[in-house]
Amino acid sequence: MAACIFCRIIKGEIPCMKLFETQQTLAFLDIGPLSKGHALVIPKHHGAKLADIPDDQLTEILPTLKKLVIATGATDYNILQNNGTIAHQQVHHIPKPNETEGLGISWPATTGDMDSLKALCEDIKSKM
Amino acid sequence: MAACIFCRIIKGEIPCMKLFETQQTLAFLDIGPLSKGHALVIPKHHGAKLADIPDDQLTEILPTLKKLVIATGATDYNILQNNGTIAHQQVHHIPKPNETEGLGISWPATTGDMDSLKALCEDIKSKM
Repeated sequence: MAACIFCRIIKGEIPCMKLFETQQTLAFLDIGPLSKGHALVIPKHHGAKLADIPDDQLTEILPTLKKLVIATGATDYNILQNNGTIAHQQVHHIPKPNETEGLGISWPATTGDMDSLKALCEDIKSKM
Repeated sequence: MAACIFCRIIKGEIPCMKLFETQQTLAFLDIGPLSKGHALVIPKHHGAKLADIPDDQLTEILPTLKKLVIATGATDYNILQNNGTIAHQQVHHIPKPNETEGLGISWPATTGDMDSLKALCEDIKSKM
């Protein structure tokens, strides 16, 4: 945790463009923005991935993002949360002002095989 | 609302690969999956964008996604919520098993101008 950049930002050891802070959540501007208003909303709990964050820290994230979205005035925007490479939960709010700025997405969709999907559905359900 | 595909799925007028349902949330498999386990988690409240969904419907989304992530067994995954083209809030959970399957992202980062960022930070903060 001592080396976690988000923990250090939360503690104030590293400065950030703070937008909003609650007991559980911190929102700040990304300093390498994809578009104007690109921000991060993080839970203060240190954890690698979504699945590591306690539920009571997760509940506040989307209402905070909503507040942020309204404040930025963005009408089109992407919310993205990646898991697998970076320490600490991260959620980005990225306004999408036009085709070239903001987040680009490639969507290599497959045609779902219904029988496989049904089997997978049952399998996941049984674990929830 | 009569024409909204998600409202029709919630009502059961259109079938879905249902994984999980609560009073406020429905989770189901995407039938054109980017990767095995690609699922949608939607609030039952009809609204075009994140900013249109009441806070009490937002709080449950991430804990539901967490439950889903654990059930799928995915270790690397993307969570994405797009606003601007589709009616009804949508949140995807997309496992990322390897480089080619799953969500592709282009990240055209800019170098933030600190003075502009500070001004923007103050502007957004004043609206929150």
